[in-house]
Amino acid sequence: MSEKHVLALSGGVGGAKLAAGLAAVLAPEDLTIVVNTGDDFEHLGLTICPDIDSVTYALAGLNDTQRGWGVKDESWQAMAMLKDLGEADWFNLGDRDMGMHIARSWRLRAGDTLSAVTARLTRKLGIASAIVPMSDAPLRTQVGTADGWLDFQRYFVAEQCRPVATAIRFDTGPAGAAPSPAFAQALAREDLGAIVVCPSNPYLSVDPILAVNGVRELLAARKVPLVAVSPLVGGTALKGPLAKLLSELGQPVSNQAIAAHYGDLLDHLIIDESDAADAGGLRETGLSVTVTGTVMCDAGDRERLARVALSAARIETG
Amino acid sequence: MSEKHVLALSGGVGGAKLAAGLAAVLAPEDLTIVVNTGDDFEHLGLTICPDIDSVTYALAGLNDTQRGWGVKDESWQAMAMLKDLGEADWFNLGDRDMGMHIARSWRLRAGDTLSAVTARLTRKLGIASAIVPMSDAPLRTQVGTADGWLDFQRYFVAEQCRPVATAIRFDTGPAGAAPSPAFAQALAREDLGAIVVCPSNPYLSVDPILAVNGVRELLAARKVPLVAVSPLVGGTALKGPLAKLLSELGQPVSNQAIAAHYGDLLDHLIIDESDAADAGGLRETGLSVTVTGTVMCDAGDRERLARVALSAARIETG
Repeated sequence: MSEKHVLALSGGVGGAKLAAGLAAVLAPEDLTIVVNTGDDFEHLGLTICPDIDSVTYALAGLNDTQRGWGVKDESWQAMAMLKDLGEADWFNLGDRDMGMHIARSWRLRAGDTLSAVTARLTRKLGIASAIVPMSDAPLRTQVGTADGWLDFQRYFVAEQCRPVATAIRFDTGPAGAAPSPAFAQALAREDLGAIVVCPSNPYLSVDPILAVNGVRELLAARKVPLVAVSPLVGGTALKGPLAKLLSELGQPVSNQAIAAHYGDLLDHLIIDESDAADAGGLRETGLSVTVTGTVMCDAGDRERLARVALSAARIETG
Repeated sequence: MSEKHVLALSGGVGGAKLAAGLAAVLAPEDLTIVVNTGDDFEHLGLTICPDIDSVTYALAGLNDTQRGWGVKDESWQAMAMLKDLGEADWFNLGDRDMGMHIARSWRLRAGDTLSAVTARLTRKLGIASAIVPMSDAPLRTQVGTADGWLDFQRYFVAEQCRPVATAIRFDTGPAGAAPSPAFAQALAREDLGAIVVCPSNPYLSVDPILAVNGVRELLAARKVPLVAVSPLVGGTALKGPLAKLLSELGQPVSNQAIAAHYGDLLDHLIIDESDAADAGGLRETGLSVTVTGTVMCDAGDRERLARVALSAARIETG
């Protein structure tokens, strides 16, 4: 027991690694992992939640570490049949992954909330830590391009991030998207000790969480350290469109840009040792900085980085 | 071209074999295969149409001939994940088969009729003959037992036909189930030359088709031969619960019972050579009878039996 609760904010694959590290070093009751749902979409009648699934598979030890996404020991037979039947095949879904989408979709259609469905399915996979959607209401990330607004998966998968991004927005119903019950509860906990922003894309994976009703204000008002792990390594993104996106949005591809993006919310930035030269400039702005290896190749790396992040927030681990 | 149109009525696996034989010996425009949808059900948010799929896989050459049902080269990974997620696993769905259910389900939910979806998906698999649901409205077969009415798949798959059947009924909305457009059109064709009842369970696979609004009356009023292939071989059913069901419903397990069940609708019964002794008694009732091998192990068997059935209805084939 750390005696303090830790709230982690995570996007997909990169964030999921640190989330798994945190789950390995903290007691389940001391951790709430809030996951971006801005990438979620409806496809072939299924509700697909890529980031919830990345975190779930990582914590269940089901993630494919070779391919870098999806489920290990995966096959692709349902998708092959769907292709033969003339259905859209631009978003590849594995057979085991398909089982997850089918289970989630029918329970959502039966009236369960995304929170309830996620809690049930993660528990069934033996995950003790709470994996929580940022909201039970839709908040859909869209990327502005010369051809208009693209839904996130259209931009990310179908177009493979080729279009030049001019802006990013988060599409919700007229009332916006309220935090999920467990997210709201975690933010309100008296024993909240730290907020850890996992190494996910600030624009595409963390900003959607900050765009949930009231979240940015609650984070600004909190009294506990907010520690972010930079997604940059060696001055660029390990994977994904972050570097391209930063350039297109007129930002330098640097930890300075990451720090500036989080602004006053950020207390402590953890940067990779390959970017150690950034530390001085960042500290001059009043930020605390830890320089360490942030590339997570195995469970040891994940747990070590989790301990570094918690230590930066002065959270004790066993 | 036979110059006459043939309407085939089919259930699942056994019927599908003769349907495939008919499709092999008739030009596509000369054949309408109407399929029982009384076994259809909603499961895990998917609409599953077992008999349409059996006929589709047989005509596309995708059926697994070893296992006797489903798709060949099948895998079961989505189902394994669903089981891990705590979902119902009493109805086993293969991965390739799952692709079919996903494609059908999302198109039905988007508002297409079962006729339109079936036409689209069978065409995509290269099937030129028309495979047509008996109705676009639900008509659900239920089996009466000591524990009340069981939905067909609950009886057939979950309970493996163990409960003693006391009655069979077809559950529809208050207006009943209208024939699908292509079924109604086939029944009304001036060039209709024959109706072939495939070797399916009369109670569970053919009666639902006869229970569609007006179908029994239209068949009784028609002027063309109705030829049925008996599902019995050697005095019992090759597979499925027919023999058990006949006994429980107080009928002898015999071709006499099959003939009596179809009654005045039937002009010609094709029985297996192992039941040749039944022929005399059947003929005494005024029925035409052909005795031939009805077990279909390969394409040659299927086509030969199709030609026998068509010849009994005086339909010429090339």
